[in-house]
Amino acid sequence: MSKLRFRISVSLDGYIAGPEQSVENPLGIGGMRLHEWVFPLAAWRAPHGLEGGEVNESSRVIEESLVNIGATIMGRNMFGGHPGPWDPAQPWQGWWGSDPPFHHPVFVLTHHARAPLVLEGGTSFTFVTEGIEAALEAARRAAGGKDVALAGGAKAAQQYLNGGLVDEMELNLVPTLLGAGERLFEGTGDALHGLELVRTVATPKVTHLKYARR
Amino acid sequence: MSKLRFRISVSLDGYIAGPEQSVENPLGIGGMRLHEWVFPLAAWRAPHGLEGGEVNESSRVIEESLVNIGATIMGRNMFGGHPGPWDPAQPWQGWWGSDPPFHHPVFVLTHHARAPLVLEGGTSFTFVTEGIEAALEAARRAAGGKDVALAGGAKAAQQYLNGGLVDEMELNLVPTLLGAGERLFEGTGDALHGLELVRTVATPKVTHLKYARR
Repeated sequence: MSKLRFRISVSLDGYIAGPEQSVENPLGIGGMRLHEWVFPLAAWRAPHGLEGGEVNESSRVIEESLVNIGATIMGRNMFGGHPGPWDPAQPWQGWWGSDPPFHHPVFVLTHHARAPLVLEGGTSFTFVTEGIEAALEAARRAAGGKDVALAGGAKAAQQYLNGGLVDEMELNLVPTLLGAGERLFEGTGDALHGLELVRTVATPKVTHLKYARR
Repeated sequence: MSKLRFRISVSLDGYIAGPEQSVENPLGIGGMRLHEWVFPLAAWRAPHGLEGGEVNESSRVIEESLVNIGATIMGRNMFGGHPGPWDPAQPWQGWWGSDPPFHHPVFVLTHHARAPLVLEGGTSFTFVTEGIEAALEAARRAAGGKDVALAGGAKAAQQYLNGGLVDEMELNLVPTLLGAGERLFEGTGDALHGLELVRTVATPKVTHLKYARR
C-alpha cells in the first residue's frame, strides 16, 4: 500500500514558520533558522543540483525521506505567491525556478482552479480543488505504487493528520524558539491516529522524531 | 555559582498540563500521560519512599536532575489547592502528604502571604510574595551553595525563562498529543537567553533534551 509520508521542521515551541510570512520572506521572521541544519548536507544539496556537502547523522534521515517517493502533495501557501485567485497574466510558478527539486508530479491543494503547470526535470504541478482526499487519490495514482510525500504547510498537514491519513511523520525538531508564527499542532486534537514514536536520531542541531504505525 | 535548574515534561504539542485542571485532576485531562514514563523507574520511586523499579536510559537523567539540589521554587498553581487567599481554617498543605519528596526548603510564588509550613523529612514551604527574583535569592540562600530546582508550573517557568534566569533546562518530551491545556512556551518570545541544546537522551517513551549555557 502506498503510504502518505510527512516530514517537517519544527521549532522547540512548535512553529513551522515564523510570523509575518510574505512573498519576500516565505518562512516568516526567523523561520529560516528551522532549516539551517539541512543546507550543508550533501543529501540535501544533491537533489538541488549542488555538489559536495557534509555527511552526518542527519544524512540518513534525509536519504530515507527521499526514497520511494512518487508524488508530493502541498498546500497553496507552501506553493506560495499570493492568496486568492491566480493572476492570469502572471501566474505564480512556485518558489523553485524552472527545474524544481521534486522531479515527480506535485499536487497543490487550492480553492482556485488552474491548468496543470509542467516544468523541467519531471516536475509538474496539478491544482486540486476537490479537497484533501481527492488530492491524495490523484497523488497515489500518479505515484504508481510508490509513496506520496506531504510537504506541508501547517494547514495541509493539520487536515491530513486530523483525517488519520498520515502513515509516517518525521519531525525535525530544531532547538530554537520562534516565539510566534504558524504552529504545526493547532486544532489537531489529542489523537495521533495510531502513529507512534518509532525512531529518534539526535544531533546537536536537530532531533529527528519518526512516527509511524506499528 | 548556584544554578537555577528547570526540568519539566512536555507533550509533542507543547503542553505541560491538559485542559480543565482542578483539585481533583491537577494535571488536567490527559496530563497524567506526560508522566507515565517516570513512575516505573527506581530513580523516581526511591525519593518517594518506594522500593524496586526499573532502570533504563531515563534513569541517569532523573538521577542527574536530583544531584546537588538544595532548594526548590514552584508556582502557586503547582503547590495547588485553590486560587485566591489561603483558607485560614483549612490551609492547603500541598499535594504530597505529610512527608513530601523534596527533603529541602521549597519556595512558593504567591500573591497571598502566609506563614511557612514545615513538614516531615526536611521539607518546608516558604511563601514568597515579592516576586521571582526575591524567591530565587531566598532559595539560593537556603540551598547553601547547592543548586536550586525550578519545579514549574508553566507561568513560573515562563517568568524565569523570560528573565534569563534559568541556567539549565531539561525537557522531557513525551511523544503524545494533549490537544489543549497549558503550553510551556507561550509568551516566552524567541530568545533562549544563551541556553543551547547540549545533550539528548532518546527512549521510545520520552526524549530528554538538556539545555544549558556553554
